[in-house]
Amino acid sequence: MIKVSIIGSGNAAQQLIAAFVKSPTIKLVQVFSRHPENIPDLPDSCIRIHNLNLLAEADLYLIVVSDSAIAAVSEQLPFKNRLVAHTSGSVAMTELDSNNRRSVFYPLQTFTKGKKVNFKTIPIALESENTDDYALLEQVAKAISDNPFPISSEQRKALHVAAVFVNNFTNHLYEIANKICSERQIPFEILKPLLLETAEKVMTLSPKEAQTGPAKRNDSNTIKSHLEFLTDENQKKIYTLLTQSIQKNEL
Amino acid sequence: MIKVSIIGSGNAAQQLIAAFVKSPTIKLVQVFSRHPENIPDLPDSCIRIHNLNLLAEADLYLIVVSDSAIAAVSEQLPFKNRLVAHTSGSVAMTELDSNNRRSVFYPLQTFTKGKKVNFKTIPIALESENTDDYALLEQVAKAISDNPFPISSEQRKALHVAAVFVNNFTNHLYEIANKICSERQIPFEILKPLLLETAEKVMTLSPKEAQTGPAKRNDSNTIKSHLEFLTDENQKKIYTLLTQSIQKNEL
Repeated sequence: MIKVSIIGSGNAAQQLIAAFVKSPTIKLVQVFSRHPENIPDLPDSCIRIHNLNLLAEADLYLIVVSDSAIAAVSEQLPFKNRLVAHTSGSVAMTELDSNNRRSVFYPLQTFTKGKKVNFKTIPIALESENTDDYALLEQVAKAISDNPFPISSEQRKALHVAAVFVNNFTNHLYEIANKICSERQIPFEILKPLLLETAEKVMTLSPKEAQTGPAKRNDSNTIKSHLEFLTDENQKKIYTLLTQSIQKNEL
Repeated sequence: MIKVSIIGSGNAAQQLIAAFVKSPTIKLVQVFSRHPENIPDLPDSCIRIHNLNLLAEADLYLIVVSDSAIAAVSEQLPFKNRLVAHTSGSVAMTELDSNNRRSVFYPLQTFTKGKKVNFKTIPIALESENTDDYALLEQVAKAISDNPFPISSEQRKALHVAAVFVNNFTNHLYEIANKICSERQIPFEILKPLLLETAEKVMTLSPKEAQTGPAKRNDSNTIKSHLEFLTDENQKKIYTLLTQSIQKNEL
């Protein structure tokens, strides 16, 4: 059994904890949180702590806190030369304190309260300072996911930016569509099959092959009529910029 | 059996034909196309024609052609006072020639060659000039979909604009993410679980509840670092505009 301890109790930490608890090859030793009431059900063998000085020996310490807290938490760890990973897409591995062996364990997924994810399908991007540590990191990732892969810090940054486009920005487009509909008493429900099909389409076609619509067709009448229809200046700007971007892409 | 004839043979027409052929309550009478070789397999009882003057009697004529051709095709129909529908999200019902009883049959979905859709779940927006015709339109829609609904021309326009946001623009964000990754030798595959989860999340949460990421958190360090990372001016503009839009939305 590989001994893992988790530092953090937010959405991502809670979902990681739930995944590790189910794994037969991982022993979850301790979970640290300043707010122990946030920690979900744990097996009796795993101990809740709220003081970092109580951290016991483990093979891997996963720091699952907000990006801005990672460096400070890593400095407060009461030991040296042990394997420590953060789980962020955008924080450099070197922001971890150099007293310990540094690594990254970045699950490429969006964690929201009230929506459980299936870890099996989640890609986990791994990086380690020492090549020797990579094998252990990979074993831990394989215990919960079918899809761990090595990645450099530079690639991880690209992946994080790309994730902002496919997740944060895409979700914001859903929100705008929701507003456009609800202002005219159209339920958002009606858009859901289209929204889902849009995502499912690129499972088998490339986004370029999947592109349709007035911008791709250079249908200037429809584009003009949509822009006249939109009254919100911000929505107009987004419509214009994305339409131009699709058109450039087709050239 | 309700007699339906289809005018057109593009992606949308082909998928509608396939759905009607399977329905026990619809008799597909004729399919018109200038390119009969495009028409998929038809039952023996359905006749391919390539001259509009050969159109036989039917309860409903569905014009499934590009937006810009709808008016011209409707003018060429060799009969009067029959029920005619177009299937476009953005064309006014009144663009159909007034010689016939006008209506709209708009399936809210994206049709791409090489990707079959399941019509059962597709919402179909219906509108008719005469209230008497609505019942028949609804019966035809119910023959292939569980989700027909009445909609005004104004609402249909809103729905079409919203569809551009959740489909065309979202797919373009996938394309940008694909570019960002492939330039750094990261396979697009890695983004797929996140992309799918982003869509699935709003099946149960509202887009507002589902929003995460640096813009929502007002994490200016990450935003700055992403903008420094992006080298393409167009990508920078889109990143900036959508980040600002998310931030305004959170105020």
